[in-house]
Amino acid sequence: MTEALKYNQPKLTLLGAGPGDPDLITVKGMKAIANADVILYDALIDKELLDYAKEDAVKLYVGKRGGMRSVKQEEINLLIVKYAYEYGHVVRLKGGDPFVFGRGHEEMEYAENFGISTEIIPGITSAISVPALQGIPVTRRDISESFWVITGSTKAGKLSKDLELAAQSTATIVVLMGMKNLPEIVSIYKRLDISKTPVGIVQNGSTKNEVTGFGTMDNILEVVSEKKIKSPAIIVIGKVVETHPELAEVLSEINHY
Amino acid sequence: MTEALKYNQPKLTLLGAGPGDPDLITVKGMKAIANADVILYDALIDKELLDYAKEDAVKLYVGKRGGMRSVKQEEINLLIVKYAYEYGHVVRLKGGDPFVFGRGHEEMEYAENFGISTEIIPGITSAISVPALQGIPVTRRDISESFWVITGSTKAGKLSKDLELAAQSTATIVVLMGMKNLPEIVSIYKRLDISKTPVGIVQNGSTKNEVTGFGTMDNILEVVSEKKIKSPAIIVIGKVVETHPELAEVLSEINHY
Repeated sequence: MTEALKYNQPKLTLLGAGPGDPDLITVKGMKAIANADVILYDALIDKELLDYAKEDAVKLYVGKRGGMRSVKQEEINLLIVKYAYEYGHVVRLKGGDPFVFGRGHEEMEYAENFGISTEIIPGITSAISVPALQGIPVTRRDISESFWVITGSTKAGKLSKDLELAAQSTATIVVLMGMKNLPEIVSIYKRLDISKTPVGIVQNGSTKNEVTGFGTMDNILEVVSEKKIKSPAIIVIGKVVETHPELAEVLSEINHY
Repeated sequence: MTEALKYNQPKLTLLGAGPGDPDLITVKGMKAIANADVILYDALIDKELLDYAKEDAVKLYVGKRGGMRSVKQEEINLLIVKYAYEYGHVVRLKGGDPFVFGRGHEEMEYAENFGISTEIIPGITSAISVPALQGIPVTRRDISESFWVITGSTKAGKLSKDLELAAQSTATIVVLMGMKNLPEIVSIYKRLDISKTPVGIVQNGSTKNEVTGFGTMDNILEVVSEKKIKSPAIIVIGKVVETHPELAEVLSEINHY
């Protein structure tokens, strides 16, 4: 029997790292990393966060990125169970918040089925924080009484059908993982004849590699291609986007030509 | 000229404290409090957070709570400007995230109009984290592809009209500040003939005074009255709530009687 098996109860902590800036992790999250025996971390995690870990903690990259060779979800689930029983406290470090399109709940359920105790530590979701760091509030009195966060890439890789209804609401809409399907989003707004709706796109929000593009549904595809904006990016749609100075500029140009 | 005027540039940091547990503030937020010359804090802020502050920092409670004598928004705006010019770095410490129904954007704009530089540090919103800490994910593959966060109390104290449309969507719905208007929420679901929709309510989420109630729109008013659940509470609505064991129990009781 190893020391680990003797002393460490198997445990899984699902931990949200926030949108990118390592200082946007919670104090509780920082403490969990320091306590971890194993850290399984995703793509988009700032490596600086691993400095909080014990020197002998196992640190394993299990990121999934479009197009690249990656660890399958089933393998991640198995790794969690294996490491929890072998080493004790596994911290599953995920970008943003673990319960926002993160498959965090599936990982939690899987571990619980193997008798592993679980805990969740929420993270700052990029859905709210990335627009906020641009000065765009998802809600604002007299402008928006609600916000609707939607996946741009369902299990089948498609845009969620919820977007069509959302476009007809007064909610601020935030689409995560939606860059691949941006042309489809634009076509929904054109078909509904609301293509003047303001839209902002932020790649690598909260980090020093941040790139932004602002416009309306009429010209956002050109803005994106001009500025070479790629995934991972947040798409924020609705009147609140007008609070951003860059959009004001774009709108005035449109009106001039 | 005072020392403060000589050395400290007027600055406002809008800071989200998270849902209640003081360890759910971000590392960046903790550092901002430590750097503050003045802290203007809301109701629902754990006083422990003020321990990060410098000993000579001004700490002023400006909370607004229903029914109690409170500081008006206009007064808060003025206090921010006054203290920023008098002392330097003002941290406006708000519950949850400052841009989610917090009037944070208005405070930011007001300060900027007086030439004060501003920064936002996002917080963990209770809309996502409070359900998560109950094990309820706002999104889950094959159950929910989106979530819609709605105010239960608009400027006029009313339930947002967005709820009627939201109820007809497949989104998970989270209503903040909605306890006063819960009977109206229930009546919308009854009118739409979807009163079997699962609902969970969490008062004082993430703190040791947490109280929860689960049911469907058919019986949630009784559950709330039985368990004496009051504001501030989060209302989460939709199929994802079925992942909570307490609801499973309630549902099986309903089926038995």
